[in-house]
Amino acid sequence: MDKDKPLIGIIGGTGQMGQWFKRFFESKGYKVVIASRKTSISIQECASKCDIVIVSVPIDITVKTIKEIGPLIKEDGLFMDLTSIKKEPVEAMLKYSKCAVIGTHPVFGPSVKTINNQTVVLCPARPKKWLEFVKDIFEKNGAIVKVTTPEKHDKMMSIIQGLTHFSTICVAHALKKLGVDVEESMQYTSPIYKLRMDMVGRLLNQNPALYADIAMLNSENKRSIEEYIKSTRELIGIIKRKDRDDFITFFKEGSNFLGDFKKEATEYSDYVIEQLVKKGRLR
Amino acid sequence: MDKDKPLIGIIGGTGQMGQWFKRFFESKGYKVVIASRKTSISIQECASKCDIVIVSVPIDITVKTIKEIGPLIKEDGLFMDLTSIKKEPVEAMLKYSKCAVIGTHPVFGPSVKTINNQTVVLCPARPKKWLEFVKDIFEKNGAIVKVTTPEKHDKMMSIIQGLTHFSTICVAHALKKLGVDVEESMQYTSPIYKLRMDMVGRLLNQNPALYADIAMLNSENKRSIEEYIKSTRELIGIIKRKDRDDFITFFKEGSNFLGDFKKEATEYSDYVIEQLVKKGRLR
Repeated sequence: MDKDKPLIGIIGGTGQMGQWFKRFFESKGYKVVIASRKTSISIQECASKCDIVIVSVPIDITVKTIKEIGPLIKEDGLFMDLTSIKKEPVEAMLKYSKCAVIGTHPVFGPSVKTINNQTVVLCPARPKKWLEFVKDIFEKNGAIVKVTTPEKHDKMMSIIQGLTHFSTICVAHALKKLGVDVEESMQYTSPIYKLRMDMVGRLLNQNPALYADIAMLNSENKRSIEEYIKSTRELIGIIKRKDRDDFITFFKEGSNFLGDFKKEATEYSDYVIEQLVKKGRLR
Repeated sequence: MDKDKPLIGIIGGTGQMGQWFKRFFESKGYKVVIASRKTSISIQECASKCDIVIVSVPIDITVKTIKEIGPLIKEDGLFMDLTSIKKEPVEAMLKYSKCAVIGTHPVFGPSVKTINNQTVVLCPARPKKWLEFVKDIFEKNGAIVKVTTPEKHDKMMSIIQGLTHFSTICVAHALKKLGVDVEESMQYTSPIYKLRMDMVGRLLNQNPALYADIAMLNSENKRSIEEYIKSTRELIGIIKRKDRDDFITFFKEGSNFLGDFKKEATEYSDYVIEQLVKKGRLR
């Protein structure tokens, strides 16, 4: 095997993300074999033949697939997955294979044109010789690579995806129950609400099944969401009893916790609003 | 009285918004008298002397102030307030005066440089001859004027300010309880989370007392927030019992309700993300 030009196999390579990574690796001069239920080559054959084996199947069948093909991968090969949770897939890859294991989460969807400026999280659970190779191929092409553990990744994602998606999906649901005409509400307001509503509309424009999986399969989500719900209960209580001092204390707890980040956030959001004014979003 | 050049009195004119409107009207060639506890002219004297009397005091003393000065305003004069709720102030202005009444909500803070592209909501409850005059002065200077009723205004604001502020303040509070390092979380993620966090940071960078008043003094807020909390309870239940179909149904209810708005929202947020990439926010 030529380490610079390993043969890459993508299991589930007929899906959108699989196809995206096939095009990515091929454009960098690698040979890519794809295998799924739709291909003539079986996933087992693909796993035993390739130097790098990447699982790119739906989250809910990822562990099952890893179990099937893990034992077939060469010991000096590399096993990767692309799911948006890392704990269970990485544990399964370690358990069912003897090769190198690097859990991978490309934090973008198949609609992006290039990997430039996109984030890729790597969890090198048993990287052997492969970590630099994998980091290099992403970084050379402009990606932002973050190396961490599966536990840390899942905890972060329970905020980034779990908590923020949750609160946004619930805003849309409440708007429906309240019968608010969103287009009309845009006539009443400041730029920052318009921007918030654009983000609500954007998220609800995505695939519900993917969001269901993201919400349900990260075991850290429950804790993050429960803390959020506790905060909502506390704050509605304060609002109902009109306790101005308690409101201010509650607000300041979050505000002090965010510290210097608030200044940076204000500057960037000022910039964004300026751009939206130029684009005519505010008319 | 020269209708084109009425004398304008601002009650609470030493505050930030009062000062902003003093500068605004003066720059358009109007004479402005300001009165507060700090000025030599009393608020009563100001109210009886001016053609347009604008109340610009903190929300919690607005009705009390209206009651004090309303009876003193000339019958062919105009009474306005600038608070971010409209039902109670407009009712009070109607009750305690015989002059024209136009409740006004400038949907911006005193930090904006000009009124261009800013929204002003007008509630002409008893406008007499004054509505065109007020609309004109704002629109001629680039403001977006929305004319509506106090009830409609407060219902919209219970979404725009009540619901969206509430969910955002609670996100910050939950992050604190979870001990999430926000700066670190930014390394793991897609542009859209960074944008969301910028908006969280921006809101928590504001004055807590103002947000307390906005949350507590609009009587419509409770209903909007309660619907939101019901939605959060429903969705956490679905996530806990891992009911994928129910999640998809819940998601689609919000998604279908938003309709065509989702496409527009996606286009504008794509644009915003592009601008943030150019600005270097994603590194």
